[in-house]
Amino acid sequence: MFLAKVIGNVVATQKSPEFNGMTLLLIQPYINKDKVLVASGSSVVAVDSVGAGIGECVMFTQGSSARLTHNTKGAPVDAVIVGIVDSVDVEGTTVAKP
Amino acid sequence: MFLAKVIGNVVATQKSPEFNGMTLLLIQPYINKDKVLVASGSSVVAVDSVGAGIGECVMFTQGSSARLTHNTKGAPVDAVIVGIVDSVDVEGTTVAKP
Amino acid sequence: MFLAKVIGNVVATQKSPEFNGMTLLLIQPYINKDKVLVASGSSVVAVDSVGAGIGECVMFTQGSSARLTHNTKGAPVDAVIVGIVDSVDVEGTTVAKP
Amino acid sequence: MFLAKVIGNVVATQKSPEFNGMTLLLIQPYINKDKVLVASGSSVVAVDSVGAGIGECVMFTQGSSARLTHNTKGAPVDAVIVGIVDSVDVEGTTVAKP
Amino acid sequence: MFLAKVIGNVVATQKSPEFNGMTLLLIQPYINKDKVLVASGSSVVAVDSVGAGIGECVMFTQGSSARLTHNTKGAPVDAVIVGIVDSVDVEGTTVAKP
Repeated sequence: MFLAKVIGNVVATQKSPEFNGMTLLLIQPYINKDKVLVASGSSVVAVDSVGAGIGECVMFTQGSSARLTHNTKGAPVDAVIVGIVDSVDVEGTTVAKP
Repeated sequence: MFLAKVIGNVVATQKSPEFNGMTLLLIQPYINKDKVLVASGSSVVAVDSVGAGIGECVMFTQGSSARLTHNTKGAPVDAVIVGIVDSVDVEGTTVAKP
Repeated sequence: MFLAKVIGNVVATQKSPEFNGMTLLLIQPYINKDKVLVASGSSVVAVDSVGAGIGECVMFTQGSSARLTHNTKGAPVDAVIVGIVDSVDVEGTTVAKP
Repeated sequence: MFLAKVIGNVVATQKSPEFNGMTLLLIQPYINKDKVLVASGSSVVAVDSVGAGIGECVMFTQGSSARLTHNTKGAPVDAVIVGIVDSVDVEGTTVAKP
Repeated sequence: MFLAKVIGNVVATQKSPEFNGMTLLLIQPYINKDKVLVASGSSVVAVDSVGAGIGECVMFTQGSSARLTHNTKGAPVDAVIVGIVDSVDVEGTTVAKP
């Protein structure tokens, strides 16, 4: 999984019917710049499975495993948010709600 | 999933027979340049499953999940367009038909 | 799928037995440089399933979907050529046999 | 698999229920810089399946294979630590616990 | 598949039990630098399925297909060596045992 920041959402009326009822969030992965994590990766459209909101730090799963949450089974989905991150400890330093 | 712009189409007469009847579109992923999304990623050939047209912003699915739309089941396909994007909201700003 | 140019072939005598009888081609993906496609990506060894030849432009499939052509089923293959490209139209301009 | 250094851990209270009881570690892949391996890749959140600790060198598996350890079966997991590395021999030179 | 050079091996005592008896080799993928292939990609830990040795040029398979060789079935493996390369022909020039 990777860490990402929820930065927006995506509206698509004409879509594969399996996406009906799903929330599509735009997330930006945290990329290492020297010693810190910065939300600067290229944006991903991920299905929300945990009730994440704009600005939150989340972790997301990609590939076939993205189809294993309660609301993505059998759908043509390759990215899903699987957790809202409370804190990250990096080498002894806690970063609250990064 | 990733966002991409439909920039063209691909014609292949000699091909794996599962591709017969499929529309092959050339799409260019949106990559983050500083704070904006620019269609500048490297081009992908994706099967269309939603009736997308040249110039439209779409979202596409990769990997094994690309075989789960109505017209890609069982085919050797690793990229499929699953939605036509109406709008993207990034941190409060709506980008209509990006 | 991605577009690639067939640039060579690979001979391996000692190999996983599922590869017996398969043609292994070396292909170089087309990468976007500004507005044009250039065969400059890093080389991939792909199984041929369509009779492609050196110099031709092809499209290839990666991942688990690469096992779904007539000659790759059940094999430890992660890349297969699935079509020989006749032409690519990019924003109204046709590139014959790129 | 890739080699990585365990650099931290991740706490997520609100998460897909399959993650209950799993340890989520933050790992940084070793990337080649000239002739040496440096833990400088972008951080990955991986499930621990072997009892790894902070500072250790591990190897991790990605994709659908990440669901094949004793504690990740059926879970929406795409990265899992599968071994604690004792040593790496590179061209005759042993690097103990890199 | 990709071409790689076998550059070392990895020892891990504490590991997922499916790895027992497997040989773990460190391989460095060949990356295109201008017109030549150079073993300069980032190192991968791959299971050996063909008896490869240090210094040899091999081809390896990634993802779920890596579980389809005789000794990797059902294991949490995402990279496996599937062939020892005898020669590579690039645009008419044969590179023996690259």
